Amino acid sequence: MGANKTEVRIATVLDGVVQSRFDEVASEEPLEIRVVCNGATITAAVTMRTPGNDFELAVGFLFAEGMLRSWSELSAITYCVEREIDVEQRFNIVNVELRNVRAAQLQRLERHFMISSACGVCGKASLEALEMRGGFSIKPGPTINAQTIYAIPQTLKEAQAAFRSTGGLHAAGLFDRDGNLLAVREDVGRHNAVDKLVGWAFLNKLLPLSERLLMVSGRSSFEILQKSLSASIPIVCAVSAPSSLAVALARKFDVTLIGFLRDRRFNIYAGESRIECARPLATLAAPGH
Amino acid sequence: MGANKTEVRIATVLDGVVQSRFDEVASEEPLEIRVVCNGATITAAVTMRTPGNDFELAVGFLFAEGMLRSWSELSAITYCVEREIDVEQRFNIVNVELRNVRAAQLQRLERHFMISSACGVCGKASLEALEMRGGFSIKPGPTINAQTIYAIPQTLKEAQAAFRSTGGLHAAGLFDRDGNLLAVREDVGRHNAVDKLVGWAFLNKLLPLSERLLMVSGRSSFEILQKSLSASIPIVCAVSAPSSLAVALARKFDVTLIGFLRDRRFNIYAGESRIECARPLATLAAPGH
Repeated sequence: MGANKTEVRIATVLDGVVQSRFDEVASEEPLEIRVVCNGATITAAVTMRTPGNDFELAVGFLFAEGMLRSWSELSAITYCVEREIDVEQRFNIVNVELRNVRAAQLQRLERHFMISSACGVCGKASLEALEMRGGFSIKPGPTINAQTIYAIPQTLKEAQAAFRSTGGLHAAGLFDRDGNLLAVREDVGRHNAVDKLVGWAFLNKLLPLSERLLMVSGRSSFEILQKSLSASIPIVCAVSAPSSLAVALARKFDVTLIGFLRDRRFNIYAGESRIECARPLATLAAPGH
Repeated sequence: MGANKTEVRIATVLDGVVQSRFDEVASEEPLEIRVVCNGATITAAVTMRTPGNDFELAVGFLFAEGMLRSWSELSAITYCVEREIDVEQRFNIVNVELRNVRAAQLQRLERHFMISSACGVCGKASLEALEMRGGFSIKPGPTINAQTIYAIPQTLKEAQAAFRSTGGLHAAGLFDRDGNLLAVREDVGRHNAVDKLVGWAFLNKLLPLSERLLMVSGRSSFEILQKSLSASIPIVCAVSAPSSLAVALARKFDVTLIGFLRDRRFNIYAGESRIECARPLATLAAPGH
């Protein structure tokens, strides 16, 4: 199985002086996620990912895409061990075997590569498509204290063992409302790190994550919010900026969206009622914004 | 047409004190790239992108994927203006009309959504698939001085007008060997920023970019290197870390790959012979690494 770090010989150039040394970079390898259902095998996705927690990644991805809905549909998860497949490739193919799936899900699988297009091609249509898919439920609670939120980036950083040595991995961490870290996953791709986390929750029967907070390194985009929404996560925090569509999605589905969380400060882009501060907040979603 | 920034009302929480204000976030909207050829229209991709330079993005994407090979194949680029399409969506669909394309390209289009899978599912197979596709030519030159490289991040930063206000956009900049900035493009997606840059070069008949240097904010991955390779860019620099597969690709195709370029220092992961330093470098690609 691939390691999440790869050692390479590099040269460091500092003020024109060169030094040669060994360094570690984050591993990147393709993962093919296959769905086995009613005797057929369908490739649901091929994603460039950092090896490790591959079953979580596969399950989390399928769950976020609505192809896998509940524990009872999951029959088996295995690495592909067909003989004709190269040994190197075996740990880059995960078979997720489903049972009792409905026709709509199968159609979703078959149409998978066209899903984005079917959603319509403007932000509004993308949000409406999510709404039509249904099954998303973000509850009003919990509330969380601003002081607790300040501490979260540091907790995530300390948990990122791999990050410290390669500097090349995105992290996603799941926290409770007291700021305790429940799980952390890393990947070269931000979306993969979130899939791994959702997949972890799925496999441990912890879904929905209605009382949890998600923290991601980097930015928050439509894709990140779509994945957190599928797991019913009510609060999403990021070290950096959100995109316009991430803000729109958060406001539509009543998710609390926090950005630029660093150095004892943060911005709230949506769902401000879950944040406890010294004085109450004005409502953000004013008409026209 | 969509703007590249969107104004939203936000709350800023600093040391428990809340302030409400307006802020700008980077716009994110889906773009559907359609290829029109021999009377048929095929959706080549739907990507979440920041509006602006959409024709460049469409052309750069198709070029990097090998679906569009030369200027003579390009017949027209238009926004979709079909009447049945919502006004909001019209500027999110780009039609690229091709002519004189070969059967292999059409097959590539038709199989597009399966391409990654067809490449095999390990890093080595991904690189071999690129090699088989052919058409990549990275020349030995040019060489570039370490002092020139130090200055590049600052030049890129100064050019990033949008970045300064939203903090949410990735940038890709094209430089000559004296460190002069030739073009900069921004996007919520790193890969889109590189596609826009390559598309710009294509539309201005500047390909191949054999004497140029690409600088990206963030990390370098397989995808970024694949795109720069298609444009024959010999030197790729990133503010942050490369992935293992980015390093492997750079070494296989003799691309100079630089990471952690900041504060008058950088690491060289491949192609060290193009870097002029005070003393010559040892060879990085030692056996087994």
